[in-house]
Amino acid sequence: MNKELSLGIVGATGAVGGEILKLLDGDQRPIAQLNLFGSNRSAGSSLHWRSDDLKIQDISNVVQSRLDLIFFAANSAVSAEYAPILADQGVYVIDNSSAFRMEEGVPLVVPEINFDSIGANNRIIANPNCSTIIMLMAVAPLRELGTVKRIIVSTYQSASGAGREAMEELKASSRAFLDGVTFEPHILPFSYAFNLFSHNTEICDEGYNGEEMKMISESRKILGDPELLVNPTCIRVPVLRSHSESITVEFEEIAPAVEDVRNVLKAFPGVKLIDDRENNRFPMPNDSNGEHDVFVGRIRQDLSNPNAISLFVCGDQLLKGAALNAVQIGARLFGFDI
Amino acid sequence: MNKELSLGIVGATGAVGGEILKLLDGDQRPIAQLNLFGSNRSAGSSLHWRSDDLKIQDISNVVQSRLDLIFFAANSAVSAEYAPILADQGVYVIDNSSAFRMEEGVPLVVPEINFDSIGANNRIIANPNCSTIIMLMAVAPLRELGTVKRIIVSTYQSASGAGREAMEELKASSRAFLDGVTFEPHILPFSYAFNLFSHNTEICDEGYNGEEMKMISESRKILGDPELLVNPTCIRVPVLRSHSESITVEFEEIAPAVEDVRNVLKAFPGVKLIDDRENNRFPMPNDSNGEHDVFVGRIRQDLSNPNAISLFVCGDQLLKGAALNAVQIGARLFGFDI
Repeated sequence: MNKELSLGIVGATGAVGGEILKLLDGDQRPIAQLNLFGSNRSAGSSLHWRSDDLKIQDISNVVQSRLDLIFFAANSAVSAEYAPILADQGVYVIDNSSAFRMEEGVPLVVPEINFDSIGANNRIIANPNCSTIIMLMAVAPLRELGTVKRIIVSTYQSASGAGREAMEELKASSRAFLDGVTFEPHILPFSYAFNLFSHNTEICDEGYNGEEMKMISESRKILGDPELLVNPTCIRVPVLRSHSESITVEFEEIAPAVEDVRNVLKAFPGVKLIDDRENNRFPMPNDSNGEHDVFVGRIRQDLSNPNAISLFVCGDQLLKGAALNAVQIGARLFGFDI
Repeated sequence: MNKELSLGIVGATGAVGGEILKLLDGDQRPIAQLNLFGSNRSAGSSLHWRSDDLKIQDISNVVQSRLDLIFFAANSAVSAEYAPILADQGVYVIDNSSAFRMEEGVPLVVPEINFDSIGANNRIIANPNCSTIIMLMAVAPLRELGTVKRIIVSTYQSASGAGREAMEELKASSRAFLDGVTFEPHILPFSYAFNLFSHNTEICDEGYNGEEMKMISESRKILGDPELLVNPTCIRVPVLRSHSESITVEFEEIAPAVEDVRNVLKAFPGVKLIDDRENNRFPMPNDSNGEHDVFVGRIRQDLSNPNAISLFVCGDQLLKGAALNAVQIGARLFGFDI
């Protein structure tokens, strides 16, 4: 497209907002204007973009901004307050919060999987939960080989999912541990250094936490399969910015051959295979950190169920798990490259 | 029992051997004599025990030692060479290596689960794989509530499973990362700092690694159920000495109630429940490090299968996963307290 775009980012000082800013950098993109919005706390400060210093405006100004597209990377309350007003103005909102994800009529999009769920009248588009995106990048392509019935997944989630300050806390607490110094966590509820813990979102009556419930409901919505069975266990591990997931996929029928799974994943955009049994080389956070692709490997027939295959994935939580997926949606909506 | 015992440890300078030495400390145990054996490399050096410095003898001396019971905490080759000779002499050998675990006629023992598999004539008793012990401490008690048919498990394994040097490497590489200094791993195949990777044991034709295959075959042997289905994914995470495991247990019939699972686990010796949904407080490595108990929590009905429950366990890899389990076997054989 030829039109020069005017874009906005709400929450550009956060970990995800900062990645969106970086992804929109580069002069080849047809971006005429980029406005940044933030809370009282960050308004007035500025961030470097291209060769400019962009001043962060108070979030209340967003309703007068008349931009083409605004990325929301703040909390759900901010999205819930401003996104509908902007949508009424015809502004596209790509929302990284959970505010609208399960709202009927709001598309929840992983572009490689269900970009076509965005209708002509949709102005709010929800960016899914990070663990869900990374899991589905490996699972969705398999529907070409059979009917996916049930997913059992255990996550190894990075500090970045809890924000920039959690990443800093992981580093600070690790250094304190190595130095034999006491460290009191204040961002995360537990000591993170050389430790791991169950995801600290509220536990529902069924005993699943908020993150796990998102993986269930969002997977169903994205894949358009309300019957899909998902059993997630979400765990935070002392890794900085990539989520890993151990996934078992059960099909209605006998599982596809491992080689077919490999071929389908290899051909899927945004997926990279690392599946070298001979050299024991499979995906690791160190592979996916800073990368756009989701890495998949350990693909094998589940020895405990002829209908299932198991695999292991790693994806950058801040990129494909959040900022990149959002920018990819915008890029496809407005026809620019990413 | 009144007899004063004479004991030995092969490999006392290693991470597991060192823990066995510590567990045998304390004057209340009826141990008259403790002999230490090691490789050429460690022979001649000495270790402190009670108020003595015990000299480490070359392993070849073990065949003349005429002790009551010897703990082997070296590699499989050492066990394979010396254990049968000692057994022929009537010496009890509790072997932490994998040399005899799957050998017919050799009991593979988690004392809380199958101590009675040790027959009057058995002299070699195999200590199971660490991940297997920790998993079965949570799964075996559930057989009281139904028929366990299938286990799907993803592990979060600590550095200690790869020995003392791997623990040091994790610390050194973490410090290097925090200091922005390049670190070349030499004990483990990949950089471990703020990273994780698939267990580096050889991958078999089916795509499972050695650790995973142990979890399958050893679980079947310990539970006496050759039909048991197990689907493990073994991952090393940057944690020092506790293994964690995300486990889904499928029963032949409708899964037992969560409250019944809690009660059965609470009553099982060696298991401690941390299952506080309200405060989001569940087992973590920091709970189990240095502890004898295996910690279990996150107990919930699997939302994807009416026949399954899911749970999360943490256990000290060096203690219940290795040294403690071995010493518990010896303690029960010879009637001393631990």
